[in-house]
Amino acid sequence: MSTDLQADASGPGALHGLPLFDHHCHGVTTAALDRPSFEDLITESDWAAPDGTTHFDTQVGFAIRRHCAPVLGLEPFASPDEYLARRRELGTEASERLLRATGISDYGIETGHRGDEILDPAGMAAAGAARAHEIVRLERLAEELMIGECSPQAFRAAYGRVLDERLESAIGVKSIAAYRIGLDFDPARPADGEVDAAIGAWAAHIADGAPVRLDDPVIIRHVLWAAVDRACAIQFHIGYGDADVDLHRCSPLLLTEFLRRTRESGARVLLLHCYPFQREAGYLAQVFPHVYFDVGLAINYTGSRSVEVIAETLELAPFHKILFSSDAFGVAELYHLGALLFRRGLEQVLETFAERDGWPSEERQRIAELIAWRNALRAYRLDAAMPETERP
Amino acid sequence: MSTDLQADASGPGALHGLPLFDHHCHGVTTAALDRPSFEDLITESDWAAPDGTTHFDTQVGFAIRRHCAPVLGLEPFASPDEYLARRRELGTEASERLLRATGISDYGIETGHRGDEILDPAGMAAAGAARAHEIVRLERLAEELMIGECSPQAFRAAYGRVLDERLESAIGVKSIAAYRIGLDFDPARPADGEVDAAIGAWAAHIADGAPVRLDDPVIIRHVLWAAVDRACAIQFHIGYGDADVDLHRCSPLLLTEFLRRTRESGARVLLLHCYPFQREAGYLAQVFPHVYFDVGLAINYTGSRSVEVIAETLELAPFHKILFSSDAFGVAELYHLGALLFRRGLEQVLETFAERDGWPSEERQRIAELIAWRNALRAYRLDAAMPETERP
Amino acid sequence: MSTDLQADASGPGALHGLPLFDHHCHGVTTAALDRPSFEDLITESDWAAPDGTTHFDTQVGFAIRRHCAPVLGLEPFASPDEYLARRRELGTEASERLLRATGISDYGIETGHRGDEILDPAGMAAAGAARAHEIVRLERLAEELMIGECSPQAFRAAYGRVLDERLESAIGVKSIAAYRIGLDFDPARPADGEVDAAIGAWAAHIADGAPVRLDDPVIIRHVLWAAVDRACAIQFHIGYGDADVDLHRCSPLLLTEFLRRTRESGARVLLLHCYPFQREAGYLAQVFPHVYFDVGLAINYTGSRSVEVIAETLELAPFHKILFSSDAFGVAELYHLGALLFRRGLEQVLETFAERDGWPSEERQRIAELIAWRNALRAYRLDAAMPETERP
Repeated sequence: MSTDLQADASGPGALHGLPLFDHHCHGVTTAALDRPSFEDLITESDWAAPDGTTHFDTQVGFAIRRHCAPVLGLEPFASPDEYLARRRELGTEASERLLRATGISDYGIETGHRGDEILDPAGMAAAGAARAHEIVRLERLAEELMIGECSPQAFRAAYGRVLDERLESAIGVKSIAAYRIGLDFDPARPADGEVDAAIGAWAAHIADGAPVRLDDPVIIRHVLWAAVDRACAIQFHIGYGDADVDLHRCSPLLLTEFLRRTRESGARVLLLHCYPFQREAGYLAQVFPHVYFDVGLAINYTGSRSVEVIAETLELAPFHKILFSSDAFGVAELYHLGALLFRRGLEQVLETFAERDGWPSEERQRIAELIAWRNALRAYRLDAAMPETERP
Repeated sequence: MSTDLQADASGPGALHGLPLFDHHCHGVTTAALDRPSFEDLITESDWAAPDGTTHFDTQVGFAIRRHCAPVLGLEPFASPDEYLARRRELGTEASERLLRATGISDYGIETGHRGDEILDPAGMAAAGAARAHEIVRLERLAEELMIGECSPQAFRAAYGRVLDERLESAIGVKSIAAYRIGLDFDPARPADGEVDAAIGAWAAHIADGAPVRLDDPVIIRHVLWAAVDRACAIQFHIGYGDADVDLHRCSPLLLTEFLRRTRESGARVLLLHCYPFQREAGYLAQVFPHVYFDVGLAINYTGSRSVEVIAETLELAPFHKILFSSDAFGVAELYHLGALLFRRGLEQVLETFAERDGWPSEERQRIAELIAWRNALRAYRLDAAMPETERP
Repeated sequence: MSTDLQADASGPGALHGLPLFDHHCHGVTTAALDRPSFEDLITESDWAAPDGTTHFDTQVGFAIRRHCAPVLGLEPFASPDEYLARRRELGTEASERLLRATGISDYGIETGHRGDEILDPAGMAAAGAARAHEIVRLERLAEELMIGECSPQAFRAAYGRVLDERLESAIGVKSIAAYRIGLDFDPARPADGEVDAAIGAWAAHIADGAPVRLDDPVIIRHVLWAAVDRACAIQFHIGYGDADVDLHRCSPLLLTEFLRRTRESGARVLLLHCYPFQREAGYLAQVFPHVYFDVGLAINYTGSRSVEVIAETLELAPFHKILFSSDAFGVAELYHLGALLFRRGLEQVLETFAERDGWPSEERQRIAELIAWRNALRAYRLDAAMPETERP
């Protein structure tokens, strides 16, 4: 086994300068992170690695040591401790270096998860020298109303009002139905009376001291249909991506009937992550005109194997339905790797197609642009809103 | 990224002259197709592509531009409009050129879907200069009886009689239980009384003005068991292949108990398409002596990625249980690509096995022949019926 | 297509001398095997191949002819009949040659399946010149108690006692819940009264003449929790690996809630085989600190495709959670191929990662050792029990 860092596939390739619209991501923390805190942010487990092991012994851990260490001025494959010492030494500059080397032009930042620990959209825009757009978490919006002691009778009207307000600036919404109720939920729009009763029960539960956490299927269906009624871009958590998930209830295929009922609504449905259901997501993106998807999170967490995961997205799915995301949360490394591995993987996959079937260079470039940013502009209806001169 | 059409893998390979038994396909249309009509035939979606996009921006669209354009005398990667203009200019000759370049010796043509819009088996035999065999759609046969106002009391006997008649010339049957009732149907043979009651209810429903469409589970189970009783070759739609499908109810694994109950019946079960469940289908083909499968449709629709899909069929499945099909419908391009991509993919996969494990050339040739046509002759019991001199 | 046995990837590679801890396997038979008996042992089907076909026309059959034939002094790709004649000629030496060429240092031998037909752990240790450790089948232990006419009232206490006794020497336990009740069993610990009632019903059933076969969900849940209470290493049959399986009820994801309830118990859960759910197993191995997995059986049965199956295990799973096994049963060939294909596949996968991302040689070696044996020592808590000098 020989190693040749010069020869490996990590250098600038044909897609190097391509702008990226990262349509699904979160903020980073500016805190100085010790090793346990950092390890906690590079796994979807909510447990420490077993004694004698480390979360660095993973694809994402190796990718950080390989690709992020040089950005911080270290040799590739610096040890985890060296890496983290250097990271703390650089302070916020470490995050800025990692973010600004990504070539990401636009963030679609979801703000509903641990928002107080991470940079907000404006902070991310500044740190990353990019545009930041907000994505509103539907379930969080409902929780905020209940925290504000909205009366059950007023809930539906109030929810519609705050959603309208938020959508004046936000470019879309996200649902975490996957890990609150499972994607096998009833696809029908719930009746108003049903919703009011469920809200009443939830309010009573909160009054009894329960934490404000929305996991009632009727209410979640209501907020989903509120978004459908507004012809929103609606992101759905799919598949891998949270330790709470029952993965067998997170296949995107479970949304089939919901997709049938919404395909003439004007809403677009954006399936996030999707691993290991990327082929199923590609099928839905072919069959339903309003379905888009990405494999963002899985690119980071499969590291040296992400080429194959990306390749599987280019089977049934039309090229105008695939999106880029990093799904980065907490550490700037995940932005960096998300962008780097995506460019590298997409380029390798398109080159394979050129070898097999002679795909012309200009067609490959066109497809890369679709996936990198043009599809996101179309899905989020930003092609009209964003003047040509401001586009990536 | 460079392009070298000379060097790509589309030229004649070692499997170039291999005859093919396309055990599952449909007729082509001879109508002059405008762009919307053509696009409608190169997707499994029943919707137009969203504004500003085209169904040509897909694997199958690129494969048509790459591989079919030269057959019509155009450069590879002619634009969609150039391609369609040339296609209309050539008229029926376009289809004949595409069909006759496939090297397909035998078609197994299913006649139960939009049969009035496409060539019938005799027409296909003439257009393609090949033998055509008929496959009868079980559900359609029942619908034809109801259209003919068969009395509910007479239905079971009549169904058996017409099925026997059709099987005098047809080589097998097909069921679309997958997208009428889901493959999670009760595997038990329904009792006669149950069937008669379901037929009665269906007849009453039709008398009330409902369209004649069989989606009653009891009746579908009855026609399946009628085929089992005749020790037929029974094709099942599996997985991807129709916009009506609930894909999560189309895994071939859901047939497990039905397969257990039929494995001594003499019937052979042929799992069609199977994507993305090709590994599951390979498992069933190993465990059950009467199970065969193909990934026909997925080869066309995954285009430059079809090599990997074909490779996945050669894992658990015995080499004597894998079949070739194009599942082409409507346009001759799908026949052309089905054959071309199958040959190319199978050859590349077998070459990889030779590189890894030194598979001898004559063994690779033998396996290719099994999959290309010999397994179909065995599965359809044509090895006896078709004299040696008439075989591919 | 050309063949170059010198150039193929079957020669000794960088992982050639690596010791292997085969944590899940069974004994081999010393009987002289005729062709039907041998064929029966190289498939998971319990049926003969259809007329005119052979179970040798499979990946495992080709791998035997390619890799085992030379060990017995034949040319690669000797015919099945030549191979079996030579095998009988060599007698027990054939098995010894095949076993001793594996480089396996330790066997984890499960003794609960057809134990009277195959070598016991001591016999395997002698034949293979390796250490043999016992794995106890939980369901078999219960059946043995019932065969010994244990009274229903005494069952729970007796089961605990014999399990404790067996665990004085055995290193772990195995459950076949997958193909007795399906992995969608209720994850809750059953109440004592429920268990006693189920045992009583089972005893009555046996008294009425039923064969002693444990397939009661309450009792199986009881023996699983008995193992959890002992903080055991608990193997679970997952996915492919038995003709009795309903594969759609054998996804490891169905264990999610059971894994949540046991992750602080001290028990380790080892998911066996996992094909075609290896990506799902990798997900569980990331999220749950006590979950390990292998793809042993699938390596043998996918042969020339096993590289890809192994590669899929190295996506989400931490490198300290992946194990080696052959799951060999009956014939020494399966040990031989399990070891050879595992080394070859892991090496090729790690080399791909080096090409893509410059993984250093010493890191690849370290990961290979983790997967080959170190993870097994940790999972089975043998790192303390086995002095450094006795380790592989």
